[in-house]
This record gives sequence, structure tokens and C-alpha cells, in this order.
Amino acid sequence: MNAPALRQNHHDGEDALEALSSLVGADIAACNSLIVERMQSPVALIPQLAAHIVAAGGKRLRPLLTLAAARLCGHAGTRHIRLAACVEFIHTATLLHDDVVDESALRRGQASANALFGNKPSVLVGDFLFSRAFQLMVEDGSLEVLAILSAASATIAEGEVLQLVIQNDTGSTEAQYLQVIEGKTAALFAAATEVGAVVGERPDEDRAALRAYGRALGIAFQLVDDALDYDAVQATLGKTVGDDFREGKITLPVLLAFARGTEEERGFWRRAIEVREQGTGDLEHATALMRRHGALAETIRRAEAYGAEARAALAGFPDSPTRRAMLGIVDFCIARAR
Amino acid sequence: MNAPALRQNHHDGEDALEALSSLVGADIAACNSLIVERMQSPVALIPQLAAHIVAAGGKRLRPLLTLAAARLCGHAGTRHIRLAACVEFIHTATLLHDDVVDESALRRGQASANALFGNKPSVLVGDFLFSRAFQLMVEDGSLEVLAILSAASATIAEGEVLQLVIQNDTGSTEAQYLQVIEGKTAALFAAATEVGAVVGERPDEDRAALRAYGRALGIAFQLVDDALDYDAVQATLGKTVGDDFREGKITLPVLLAFARGTEEERGFWRRAIEVREQGTGDLEHATALMRRHGALAETIRRAEAYGAEARAALAGFPDSPTRRAMLGIVDFCIARAR
Repeated sequence: MNAPALRQNHHDGEDALEALSSLVGADIAACNSLIVERMQSPVALIPQLAAHIVAAGGKRLRPLLTLAAARLCGHAGTRHIRLAACVEFIHTATLLHDDVVDESALRRGQASANALFGNKPSVLVGDFLFSRAFQLMVEDGSLEVLAILSAASATIAEGEVLQLVIQNDTGSTEAQYLQVIEGKTAALFAAATEVGAVVGERPDEDRAALRAYGRALGIAFQLVDDALDYDAVQATLGKTVGDDFREGKITLPVLLAFARGTEEERGFWRRAIEVREQGTGDLEHATALMRRHGALAETIRRAEAYGAEARAALAGFPDSPTRRAMLGIVDFCIARAR
Repeated sequence: MNAPALRQNHHDGEDALEALSSLVGADIAACNSLIVERMQSPVALIPQLAAHIVAAGGKRLRPLLTLAAARLCGHAGTRHIRLAACVEFIHTATLLHDDVVDESALRRGQASANALFGNKPSVLVGDFLFSRAFQLMVEDGSLEVLAILSAASATIAEGEVLQLVIQNDTGSTEAQYLQVIEGKTAALFAAATEVGAVVGERPDEDRAALRAYGRALGIAFQLVDDALDYDAVQATLGKTVGDDFREGKITLPVLLAFARGTEEERGFWRRAIEVREQGTGDLEHATALMRRHGALAETIRRAEAYGAEARAALAGFPDSPTRRAMLGIVDFCIARAR
């Protein structure tokens, strides 16, 4: 695509997020209130630390997906609000634990909780929010929802551990990378949308369709994220550019550039990613190699293919403002790369 | 008590643990098998790391309490086995996160998981085991059990965070200390025994009685643990003696020695606990000050009072081998101090 087309895409993406947010405006406001209410504790440091990450905002993408899916499935009650808060609590808990694990200094454009409060409270407040999510699910009272979100939580942890295992290993495969992002990202997206179908009391096929939508959307989202780590203006990304490179994280752009590289280039990747000997200009060199071999463009192409899969999963639902907003979210996730 | 009496006590304690273990022998074996079966994952590092802490053994005190409480309440099925495994998974997850938080080098007399595998996998495998515990509860299918154990998990995290907040502050109160150990230890003991009453389908008063037993037992257990950190042979304790002192952790022996100390002694505590300037001989000096002011003996006396409360909570249950074994466990928890 040429530059004006890319800009148009970016515009469409932001519009799509706004469209969804305004469609479920009252619900997301209620969800935000519930999040603030239920992160309280007599131990003041817990809401303080949680507020830092919750107030930092983020897009509330996952709870928005739960709210939208429930609406798409005709849910007329308020259960989806509580479950959207559960989804966001689980997401926030994993962010807190990720930042400890990644030793990140930035999160959502601000100092990360672990940088500000230390690792110890970040681990424990993550545990608190995770427990609180399960308490909210118990209040909702659906064993089906509990099954979906407890399984997703286990899968997230498996994905994160596998990510550690393959880190710094340029011999890792695309299949392993896909397994990592299926776990660390797609599992919660899939659960967030499936839960919407459960509260809508829809038949299994609709539940499977919404799950497929969330999964494909989550993979597309993570592929774009992994491209952006090498290819974004820091202010736009809201996290440190080059974090993945510095940690020697194995992502698709690295695997593609390595596979397509010369023997000399592979030597560079081994030094930077495996031995982690990195100097000035290495990140720029890495990005240049990725561009030379089309690794970033290919990563975005794969994201677009998963985006198409997400759109196709909604084929069985009749046209409606909610369905259009959910299709638009696919554009939003991919347009972040522009 | 004089020395021979103390040794007799210790003997009684070990006997009590053996009595309970053999009483529920088949159940605890089934629980152990289930633990090993359900900590498996396609990501090999997860069972490897989990096996390290699970195989290190420990006493399986909390799952034993669930099994005993269920038996005391006349449960004739097998639900208690799965729930005992849940309790142990939650406990193991908190141990993994504690060790990261405490930066402990030893756990159960072996190198701790974080020392051996690193902090990152310890945090994530803790998350995995915690999620798995909730999956097991969902398989059991009781929302009451899910409510009890999700609330306990949140309370544990609150206690651990409060512990961090009051750390290194000799101005902390006994009430705060009690709140810490109610959370970090008593909450799971109380939940472990209450769950036994739930599967036994007993009336609320029995459920409350078993909860009270577990809570008081847990507090007694932690008081003894906190005395042992200053007063045990390392090989017996299975963890590093003096860890609490080195971290400046606020425990009852410290609070009592500080409250009863001279101004000069308080200066020592402030330097060691608040400023954390510690040198050779400081741990020995701390222990000597505790002995001088009867702080360790008083801590054990308080543990004995909670032990009596635990025994009293079982008053409404008729005499039986299980009830006798549960009374014996109170002796076991306190006799560890001898």
C-alpha cells in the first residue's frame, strides 16, 4: 500500500475503536466503575498499585470485546459487565506479572508498576487481581464461564513459560512462536468473546464462532505488536521500542529475517539474540535486515490473513451495528501497524 | 517446661502427623497422584519446576486437613481428594511467588525454585498452578467451594502485601502483624478445613466450626514458624534460619523484644530491621535479646492459646479416630517449636 492508503487505514482503525466504545458506552462505563470498586482493599497499596495500571488506561480492548459479543448474542441483562471486568482483571494481572518477568521499564507509555513499586508488590497485586476475577465469576455463578476463564488462564501461563523457554534461541520454530502467541494473547481474546456467547445463551456453533473470532483477532493483534516492536515511534506504541530485541525475544520478524538471512547476517542474529552482545546501532541494523528481507511486511501480511479469519467467523451473524463494530475492530488491530 | 517434657512434646507432635497421614493414607496417595497428573503440561519446564517443589515434599499439611475434615463430616465419596489437590496447588503457587518475593535461597531444605530456575519461571509456573487449581474446582462443580477458595486466595495476597508494607518498620503494631498472618497463613488453613465440611454437606454451624479450627490452627502454625526463624537448628527447619531477620520482616518476636527493650536495644532493632545495617553476630544478638525479654516464649504461649482455640472448635464433633487425629495436629503444629 502507498502512504495515503496507509494513513486512511490508520484512520479507519481508530474510528472502529471509537465506534465500538460508543456503541457499548454505558456498559463500558459501568465496567470501569466495577473495576475501580472491586480493586479496593483495606491494604491501601493494592488499590494504589492497581490504579496505576488501570488508570494508565489502555484501550480496554478485551472487556470491550466481551461487551460487544454479549450484545451481538442478544444478552439483555447486566452479566456481561461483571464478566468484562473479570477479563480486564485477568489481563491486568498478567501485565503485572509480565512486567516483572520482562523487567520492563515502560507500560502504556508510563513507568511500569514494577519500576515504580518494585517487583514484589507487582507479583502480589497481580495475584490479588487474579483472585478477585475468580470471585467476580463466582458471583456471576456460571460454571461454564469459570471453565472458560480458568482454562484460558492456564493456557496464558503455558504460553508465557514457552516464550521464556525459546527466548534467545534462533533455532526456535514458527510453530513454537505461534504456540506462544496462541497462549499469551489469543487465549484471553478467545475467552473474552466466547463468554459473551455464554451469557447470550447461544447454541454451541455461535459460541464456537465467537471463540474463533477472538482467537484469530488475538493472533493478528500480537503479530502486529511484534512488528511494532521494531517499527514504531515510541510515543505511538506506548512502550519501549526494541524491548523484544534487547531481551532476545523470539518473534516472527526475527525468525523470518534469520531464515532469509545470509550466513553473515545469521552471525549477527546469534550474537544479538543468543549471546545478547548488543551495541550501539544494533537495533537499527536488526530493523534494516528485517526490511531488506521483507520480514516486517510478511508479519503484517500474516496478521491480515488472521484478520480475514476473524471476519469470516462472524459470517453467520446478521448485519447489525454491533457486528459492524466488531468487524471494524479487526481493522483497528491491524491498522496499528500503519 | 523442662527439657525431657519438651522432647516428649516433640515426639507427640510427629506421632500426630503420622496418625493423620495413616488414617487418610489411601486418600493422600490418590491426592498425590492427582497432583502429579494435573501439573503436567506440553511445556516441559512447567512440570519440571513444579516437580521440584512438589517432590521436595513438605508435609502436605493443608491437603491432609481437607481430607480429615471431609472424613470428620462423613463424606463418603471422592470429591475431597480433588479439593485437597486444589488446596495444595494454591499453596504451592503462593510458595513459588513468596520465594520470588522473599528472594529465598532455601525452601524445604533444598535450593528454592527461583534460585534454581530463576524468578521468571517461578512467577509463571505459580500462575499456572493457581489456574489449574481453579480448573479442578470447576470440575468438582461446587460454587460454594469456588467462593471459599477464591476469597481465601484474595485474602492471602492481601496478607502478603501488608507484610511488605509493614516490613522494616519497627513502629508496626501487633494488630497489623496478626492481620498479616491471618491472611498469608490462616486463610488457606481455614478454607482447607471449611471445604471439607462443604463436601460433607454439613449444616452451617459445623462449617463455621471447621473454619474456626483451621483459622486458629493456621495462626498457631505461623506464630511457631516465626519463633523458629530465630530459634531452630537449620537442618530441622528446612529453611534458612534468620531469613526474617535479614529481610527486616516484622514478626511477633521482634515486636515483643522491641516493646520490652531498653532505648539502646531499640536502637539496635532500628539499625538492623529498619536501616538493615547488619553485621556478624547481629542475628545471635537479636536472638539473645528475644530470650532476655521472653519474646520467643511469649510467642509460643500465644501459639498455644490459638491451639486451645482450635481444639475447642472441634468440641461439637463426637469422639472418633479422625477427631483425635485432628486434635493431635494441633500438638504437631506447636511441638515443632521444641
